[in-house]
Amino acid sequence: MQKIAIQGVRGAFHEAAAKKYAGESIQLVECMTFRDLCKSLKSGQSDMAVMAIENTIAGSLSQNYGLINEYQLSIVGEVYLRIQMQLLALPGVELSAIKFIYSHPVALNQCNFFLDGLSGVQVYESKDTAESARMIREGNLTDTAAIAGETAAQLYSLDILKGNIETNKENYTRFLVLTNQSNQSVEGDKASISFELGHQPGTLADILTVFKKNRINLTNIQSMPLVGKPYEYRFHADLTWESKVDFEKAMESAGEFANSIILLGIYKRSNFNFQ
Amino acid sequence: MQKIAIQGVRGAFHEAAAKKYAGESIQLVECMTFRDLCKSLKSGQSDMAVMAIENTIAGSLSQNYGLINEYQLSIVGEVYLRIQMQLLALPGVELSAIKFIYSHPVALNQCNFFLDGLSGVQVYESKDTAESARMIREGNLTDTAAIAGETAAQLYSLDILKGNIETNKENYTRFLVLTNQSNQSVEGDKASISFELGHQPGTLADILTVFKKNRINLTNIQSMPLVGKPYEYRFHADLTWESKVDFEKAMESAGEFANSIILLGIYKRSNFNFQ
Repeated sequence: MQKIAIQGVRGAFHEAAAKKYAGESIQLVECMTFRDLCKSLKSGQSDMAVMAIENTIAGSLSQNYGLINEYQLSIVGEVYLRIQMQLLALPGVELSAIKFIYSHPVALNQCNFFLDGLSGVQVYESKDTAESARMIREGNLTDTAAIAGETAAQLYSLDILKGNIETNKENYTRFLVLTNQSNQSVEGDKASISFELGHQPGTLADILTVFKKNRINLTNIQSMPLVGKPYEYRFHADLTWESKVDFEKAMESAGEFANSIILLGIYKRSNFNFQ
Repeated sequence: MQKIAIQGVRGAFHEAAAKKYAGESIQLVECMTFRDLCKSLKSGQSDMAVMAIENTIAGSLSQNYGLINEYQLSIVGEVYLRIQMQLLALPGVELSAIKFIYSHPVALNQCNFFLDGLSGVQVYESKDTAESARMIREGNLTDTAAIAGETAAQLYSLDILKGNIETNKENYTRFLVLTNQSNQSVEGDKASISFELGHQPGTLADILTVFKKNRINLTNIQSMPLVGKPYEYRFHADLTWESKVDFEKAMESAGEFANSIILLGIYKRSNFNFQ
């Protein structure tokens, strides 16, 4: 059975993303931090890893690109997961009995409209959505609710007190699928690259013009300051194309403008698919 | 006395950034989340706010650009703070007695080289660097250390058991200084802007070429997916210039390519200044 590393515990959104990509018959390796997830893959403890990389509300988890570089991992796929937030409580508990709500800060932020409408309830940040659900079950807490996904409700036998309380219904998280093997030759229509530019003004415009001329579309770009090199930057970009020859030509030309350019992986693009 | 909102509690890096910008004679308004920080400014509870926006290790806190947009705040300045991490414990406690270390996940990540060299110590994530220091003082914990800044050591009378344990010595955090007043006419040499582009390939290349032609330098760029509009993007960018006339011309031309373009503030650029 495939061993897939996820960040966080069973019942969290990373589990749902892993199953969407690889099916139900997988063995999960729970990793407490994103660094641990990379280590698990590098050491052979897991065959594959699923790592959140951007969210419509919280933005980019740009530090994760740094980890992929540092551990020399390859991106082999992506998963988009619609994020729906549920207010979970012990069966039989009513909304009027709830005095405390726990969840991860990003999840709380995604439900701010619902939370602003409550009165007499104290909201607390926790480390994980699923952890908050587990705490209610294990502590038998009848005055506390958690904000988490449906997977957590099933895992800890909690009821959905109020469903789909996320403010924005088109809320999604994009996950990358990683392996420890090189992945440069696979047929695909999307790539993630990383490149460094010096302080010379306008170099980024030059590189993006190369992509434009070769009909390459940019779906994501993030600049990151370079540690130890003030005023120099590393950029992370995701590219899509209709013809792979265009991509290969663009990469060749782009190399002239960048101090270094790394291909993190070529893979098949996925889509939002909000049914 | 000026009331300045900070994220987190007294003793955290936000306090040090606020004092570097506005001096020692300020009144701090502690805000638990970045959203609370914006609310505090909007409601007039505070006159100014200091908000972390990027870090050499953790990358960009891109969700904060979204909050600045949402609450229609203005950027009036920036502060770069060198981040040095200290291992703090009760006076008299030796390193060999430490069984547990607590700190914020980002701070732990910044000290991973030091932590990997320890054995027999369990590392736990907490909500805040200064909170971890306070917990040790209040609980009188003689087997526990916290990773935090020097301000926290002073505030909670803890000793520095091991100094400057951050892996990268050129580690800094950039903070934005915000107000609730409009700030479009001030003389400055740096601006933060936000713009939306449709799905048409190459538009970003066109806009960056406009900046290049007008001698505008780009010091930061982040793309963010637009909530409710799959395949459309909002970009955040920071720009610097030698002549403000160049900037004004560039903004006029850039407007032709973007669906909308917002000026978040013009301010005097700061620098890393690692003494």
